[in-house]
Amino acid sequence: MTVNNQMTKIIGVDIGGTSIKFALIDTSRGIERKWLIPTNISEKGIYISDEICSSICETLGEKGLTKVAGIGIGVPGSISSDGKTVVRAVNLDWKEVPLKNIIENKLGIDVCLLNDANAAALGEMWKGAAQGKRNLLFVTLGTGVGGGIVLNGEVLNGCHSAGGEIGHIPVRSDENRLCGCGGRNCLETFASANGLSLSMRKKLEEVNEMWSEITPPIIFEQAAKKDGLALQVLDDFTELLGQALAGIMNTIDVEEIIVGGGLSEAGSDLLAPLTEKIDCYVFPQIKHQFSVKKALLGNEAGIYGAAYAYLSMKQLN
Amino acid sequence: MTVNNQMTKIIGVDIGGTSIKFALIDTSRGIERKWLIPTNISEKGIYISDEICSSICETLGEKGLTKVAGIGIGVPGSISSDGKTVVRAVNLDWKEVPLKNIIENKLGIDVCLLNDANAAALGEMWKGAAQGKRNLLFVTLGTGVGGGIVLNGEVLNGCHSAGGEIGHIPVRSDENRLCGCGGRNCLETFASANGLSLSMRKKLEEVNEMWSEITPPIIFEQAAKKDGLALQVLDDFTELLGQALAGIMNTIDVEEIIVGGGLSEAGSDLLAPLTEKIDCYVFPQIKHQFSVKKALLGNEAGIYGAAYAYLSMKQLN
Repeated sequence: MTVNNQMTKIIGVDIGGTSIKFALIDTSRGIERKWLIPTNISEKGIYISDEICSSICETLGEKGLTKVAGIGIGVPGSISSDGKTVVRAVNLDWKEVPLKNIIENKLGIDVCLLNDANAAALGEMWKGAAQGKRNLLFVTLGTGVGGGIVLNGEVLNGCHSAGGEIGHIPVRSDENRLCGCGGRNCLETFASANGLSLSMRKKLEEVNEMWSEITPPIIFEQAAKKDGLALQVLDDFTELLGQALAGIMNTIDVEEIIVGGGLSEAGSDLLAPLTEKIDCYVFPQIKHQFSVKKALLGNEAGIYGAAYAYLSMKQLN
Repeated sequence: MTVNNQMTKIIGVDIGGTSIKFALIDTSRGIERKWLIPTNISEKGIYISDEICSSICETLGEKGLTKVAGIGIGVPGSISSDGKTVVRAVNLDWKEVPLKNIIENKLGIDVCLLNDANAAALGEMWKGAAQGKRNLLFVTLGTGVGGGIVLNGEVLNGCHSAGGEIGHIPVRSDENRLCGCGGRNCLETFASANGLSLSMRKKLEEVNEMWSEITPPIIFEQAAKKDGLALQVLDDFTELLGQALAGIMNTIDVEEIIVGGGLSEAGSDLLAPLTEKIDCYVFPQIKHQFSVKKALLGNEAGIYGAAYAYLSMKQLN
């Protein structure tokens, strides 16, 4: 194993609320090893950075490596605009953690930090559904609604690390749905898995009907069986989400929307009507000129994207 | 007059539906001459490019110049992503006009094309209200609602030249307002001068009241006199526009919003409540961390911005 060989390798890290995912990636050969460790959130997450370093050292040792070219780390929170500090990561109980320096000082390896949704967007561009594209919107429809925007191949982090926080676009509505961010009627309160289930519950209450269980897969299943209420709830859902995505398209005008997260498992049952709705509301010159695709990398998007972020940072410098 | 001296000068052009504005700008000394010619829209605007060239030649002759470093041209329409062609400019009756080559071939001077709202955004950044900023949203609230987005000092033109077309963000509403783009309930149908007047008219009809004239200045005037209906219409107006702008902030996360166009003449009567509304709906880390300012350059923003676009294109190449 030559040093030269080592320097074609990078590590992608995706810090989640329950586990931290890692991948050792060879830039020409792809993933060489994947592993994960539990996220130790005790004592305001002060052990996390140490445990990341130990885990990386362990794997490097096992692979007979002393170093890699760099490490990209996706964080479930906001990153300062100089890229050095995790400003805030609620799930980790982190505030102002200078993660880049901490890990660089410990390992002597270059580190690049970015938000996890932004990492997933880059991952899908590098190795997933958006290969070959340089301008895209990545949307996750899961417990919440997350977003990552890539323009000219680069993530839009924003001036306050809120670039792509599309889950918190306000929706005009007679309802009054409280969002985790403290706001009311954020897009996420309607367009997440929870939001969809809540809309179904409300619709059933309106007509005094009851289902034994309400989940997005059950709603899609009932709609497939032509259940009128499920069809109506899904139509309202795609209308609302389609309008929001069209508004984003009319603002940033990208060529592709990649949809990930639990709800994307519905595949074309969701994406086909959603695409139609977006098409209704985009500016004339965008109509029929963009694509909406299901994300391909699932929960590997983050580690790929974090690694890619390191690579592209390196090319820029 | 030395050649060296000539090459510190650029020309900014702003093509409008009724007149074409020009400025001869010395990069260190500012505007040396401003002039305008009427826009000749006869015969699908085929004379426009010739008349631009003649007018430039005439002025260069009068100033004893043979050449300038470059020409930036703001166009009221969409520009192809390679920056060479006006894809469409409705007011000029233009479709697929290769304006860059036409003018370069005729004058032998480098040309840079961009959309006029994008030009105004750059102009405000270079010489106007957003000096020193590199990330901003420029909004015009006039007959329509236009927008220009600058990220890291560069205009976001978009993949279909629809970047910043925020006037066409769909608004969820029980109304059914037809927009010039063919859509319904676009932001512009509510947040333009016409949209505001229409809202006032509808509010007056609701209560069977009549005003002899309804214009935005009169609405602001009545609100200043504590007229309840005018206050309510303006509150709805800033709420709706504030939500839309907050949604954009949560997407692109810039540091400053510059408001131009006729409605901006209301000054802090509009901007103070609008800023409050935006602040209600932005993501926590953006709250109180951005500014909303009145545009400074009026209808000179476009010529400044077009000239700046040429300069920054030159630096990149």
